[in-house]
Amino acid sequence: MAKSKFEYVRLFETEDRLIPNCWIVVRIDGKAFHRFTDSHHYMKPNDERGLNLMTRAAQNVMEDFKDIVIAYGQSDEFSFVFHKNTNIYNRRGSKMMTNVVSLFSSSFTMLWPRYFSTQDLQYAPTFDARVVLYPSDQNLKDYLSWRQADCHINNLYNTCFWKLVQERGHTPAQAQERLKGTLSSDKNELLYSDFKINYNNLPELFRKGTILIRCKEGVSGDTKPTTDGRQMTLVGNHVHTKARPSTVVLHTDLIGKQFWEDNLDILGPRPK
Amino acid sequence: MAKSKFEYVRLFETEDRLIPNCWIVVRIDGKAFHRFTDSHHYMKPNDERGLNLMTRAAQNVMEDFKDIVIAYGQSDEFSFVFHKNTNIYNRRGSKMMTNVVSLFSSSFTMLWPRYFSTQDLQYAPTFDARVVLYPSDQNLKDYLSWRQADCHINNLYNTCFWKLVQERGHTPAQAQERLKGTLSSDKNELLYSDFKINYNNLPELFRKGTILIRCKEGVSGDTKPTTDGRQMTLVGNHVHTKARPSTVVLHTDLIGKQFWEDNLDILGPRPK
Amino acid sequence: MAKSKFEYVRLFETEDRLIPNCWIVVRIDGKAFHRFTDSHHYMKPNDERGLNLMTRAAQNVMEDFKDIVIAYGQSDEFSFVFHKNTNIYNRRGSKMMTNVVSLFSSSFTMLWPRYFSTQDLQYAPTFDARVVLYPSDQNLKDYLSWRQADCHINNLYNTCFWKLVQERGHTPAQAQERLKGTLSSDKNELLYSDFKINYNNLPELFRKGTILIRCKEGVSGDTKPTTDGRQMTLVGNHVHTKARPSTVVLHTDLIGKQFWEDNLDILGPRPK
Amino acid sequence: MAKSKFEYVRLFETEDRLIPNCWIVVRIDGKAFHRFTDSHHYMKPNDERGLNLMTRAAQNVMEDFKDIVIAYGQSDEFSFVFHKNTNIYNRRGSKMMTNVVSLFSSSFTMLWPRYFSTQDLQYAPTFDARVVLYPSDQNLKDYLSWRQADCHINNLYNTCFWKLVQERGHTPAQAQERLKGTLSSDKNELLYSDFKINYNNLPELFRKGTILIRCKEGVSGDTKPTTDGRQMTLVGNHVHTKARPSTVVLHTDLIGKQFWEDNLDILGPRPK
Repeated sequence: MAKSKFEYVRLFETEDRLIPNCWIVVRIDGKAFHRFTDSHHYMKPNDERGLNLMTRAAQNVMEDFKDIVIAYGQSDEFSFVFHKNTNIYNRRGSKMMTNVVSLFSSSFTMLWPRYFSTQDLQYAPTFDARVVLYPSDQNLKDYLSWRQADCHINNLYNTCFWKLVQERGHTPAQAQERLKGTLSSDKNELLYSDFKINYNNLPELFRKGTILIRCKEGVSGDTKPTTDGRQMTLVGNHVHTKARPSTVVLHTDLIGKQFWEDNLDILGPRPK
Repeated sequence: MAKSKFEYVRLFETEDRLIPNCWIVVRIDGKAFHRFTDSHHYMKPNDERGLNLMTRAAQNVMEDFKDIVIAYGQSDEFSFVFHKNTNIYNRRGSKMMTNVVSLFSSSFTMLWPRYFSTQDLQYAPTFDARVVLYPSDQNLKDYLSWRQADCHINNLYNTCFWKLVQERGHTPAQAQERLKGTLSSDKNELLYSDFKINYNNLPELFRKGTILIRCKEGVSGDTKPTTDGRQMTLVGNHVHTKARPSTVVLHTDLIGKQFWEDNLDILGPRPK
Repeated sequence: MAKSKFEYVRLFETEDRLIPNCWIVVRIDGKAFHRFTDSHHYMKPNDERGLNLMTRAAQNVMEDFKDIVIAYGQSDEFSFVFHKNTNIYNRRGSKMMTNVVSLFSSSFTMLWPRYFSTQDLQYAPTFDARVVLYPSDQNLKDYLSWRQADCHINNLYNTCFWKLVQERGHTPAQAQERLKGTLSSDKNELLYSDFKINYNNLPELFRKGTILIRCKEGVSGDTKPTTDGRQMTLVGNHVHTKARPSTVVLHTDLIGKQFWEDNLDILGPRPK
Repeated sequence: MAKSKFEYVRLFETEDRLIPNCWIVVRIDGKAFHRFTDSHHYMKPNDERGLNLMTRAAQNVMEDFKDIVIAYGQSDEFSFVFHKNTNIYNRRGSKMMTNVVSLFSSSFTMLWPRYFSTQDLQYAPTFDARVVLYPSDQNLKDYLSWRQADCHINNLYNTCFWKLVQERGHTPAQAQERLKGTLSSDKNELLYSDFKINYNNLPELFRKGTILIRCKEGVSGDTKPTTDGRQMTLVGNHVHTKARPSTVVLHTDLIGKQFWEDNLDILGPRPK
């Protein structure tokens, strides 16, 4: 049983080191979450429990991976941005994406009962992950803006769609047909005229998604409470830890300049 | 909020399609499992609950990914072999490894209470994953042999180590010192003379690890019962499924020729 | 001028080691050779001088890279097959393809006057190169068959095309129109009925392309003379070498089994 | 001879698209040029003919690849910088490096007699190539500074070495021993005290290497003549072209800020 005889098989492993000085985004994405949300009776178009669980799992990831400087989530996806100078796992892409998606998945599963107290988890959820490099700050901001614009577009559509289904009795096919070819302004008008809803008054959680950034030093995480107060007591991945959570939860615009001017440290030098 | 303005960032995503006609191994590996097993009071050198939980999570993976033809696990690792002609995810390596490690992680977490009924999960576990290509059948067999030889070597060492600690009162450092430079034959002798243990009589689960293969058609999974009968009732990833599990659990030698001669279909043509 | 201050830039270089145990094909291909052959008044549809120059440059490559076991060329392309167990350049793909294409290009240029004595080289020719892995012997044979089938199809078409242009006075557009949608049998019939040409009697150099293999030990290269006797006197890349050339030039079928049965050593163990 | 039966082998080709918005450096490097320069009786430590031939071949490359914004050469190497927004070959790295090294090699070979009129080319030279990405302007400047610092360090050493060999009658081993452990200041002192040479008065071609940049519009290439007037008459890759060469040859410092302040357009927007 000489192990050495077989060790040559290690030579088939290849390196996938990412080039230095690029922002590294790991984006995780729910697999077949349409079916998953149906099976678990998510409220439509948005289920606050589900969104808060996603956020809580993402916070777990940020507790473990200190070189993540910002994360952005919406729907069944979350993007984690590692500092462009991180040396984690020697910048091996496979290591980074699999560790992140694994911890996210097990956190989501472990924390499920805390967010869905009356609904058992029916089966183990799956997320995939990819890793993408962005060479410049502007590329990275554009990436995050792309995801937030996606959140807005989908949420506006879904809000209309489910109003038509839930309150007008449309079939999904009818609702889809009604919305075909409509512009954003048409959808805003539809919500206002038919359902007395001012889209801009809907919760920012739904319209803007969720931003996670690090607490500034000397500022405790709870100065910016989230819609879900629970993460303030359970902290990080470890139940017995006493420290405050090191992330702040925001639901604000990051497409405009204001966010980046208010948070210069995010893209600043990597903290020690 | 024109999404299209930002869509150029998709061009930064790169393709990682694996070349055709190679066996694809996805190996997952526990991150910092020394600490994890300490925190959760695993029995040493082997905890059957832990090993069976690993196996059960791996079976979940095999239920979802039908192109996995064999899996092999030991300690905190599991290797999944996709058929060399699989087209899953268009053979994109990132997709394959992240989906597998995610489902494994959430399954492990979800099924934890069934295997550790008196020990709560303290924190979410993390696994990493890698993907490796093996061009020939022999390369693949050698890969699996490498892992099984590793299982044997580690188990023999750990069995001695923990006997010295648990029954001789050695400190870990003393036990380590005692075993330094010993050959396999020395360790076998140590076990026999000092502890009246015939190593070859220890459970195959510990000495050989765990092999998962597909049930042959018309043969139900329970003809080869495992040390853990439970997976016979809960089946696949979905609680409500009635079907038998489609995997068989074995703890036999796969280094010799016999195993492969008995199971020619494993490396045969990809089933439809 | 401290060099060390800048040395960090080396970290941006990435590794591209090819996995072991796969046949490695480096295929070079003329860039814009339609224009190149026009500028240099190549005879159409085939210019023996040009084909022989390609072959001679390929022989130079085989002299320098001893792990090439077979090469196949047609038109403005040449494929070089490195043994699946080669360790040249530690199997780094970039190194392999750039060294091969560089030596091919400079050899082609250097040897030009010997093949085109009455036509000066007008400008420096460019070739590109790619590297492709083939895991099994069958995959490799199929690759080479693909190139030889391509040679046949193109040559049959070009032979018809240029007959129509040169002997019937068709414009290129008319010749193209005449051949549109024709089958191989149609083209054979056209050649026979209109031009009294039996396609199968055309030189094998044109119909089969060029195969380069190593001389068997104890067999001198000149036992299989080529259509171009010149490579027998100039030998290898170095003028002063006295040895016989170590490659044999063939223009035979390699799609059928016969070629591989006659030359079992090509895909056999790597020679020392 | 159905080609389609074999076409599946194309699936084994993989894509190697480089990520957007990074400077792309293709560096070519002479293979075994110690032997090449010996065989061709290059003057030591520097042969102006050889350096000018390298430069001329590099100009050929810049004529063909318009997205190269700057090139830097020294000894037997040349680095070509493609604009960070180039779309050439859809940014496929293999295509870029093989085309560049091929054209460089054939140009070097074709132009040889013009620079070495009394010395025939003995065998076809080989260069390798690699491709490296630099995300920021500073990274790129540091890369070029690294190569120029390398030029300086090697040239200072080689100047001392060959003085000792050629004028003091040292053997190579003795010269090497004499220089072991010496600092730059020691070497400068050696040259001055023993050989009455002020290192800083040696030609900039030797001390700084060669920079190629594009002519500014409306400025002809010959306003900055090189040490070799010949490239002014032969222009570009094509003998019959009448246009002025589109590159300027410089031998100046690029490590300091001045060069980049004087040439802001090099790293500016990509010209149409």
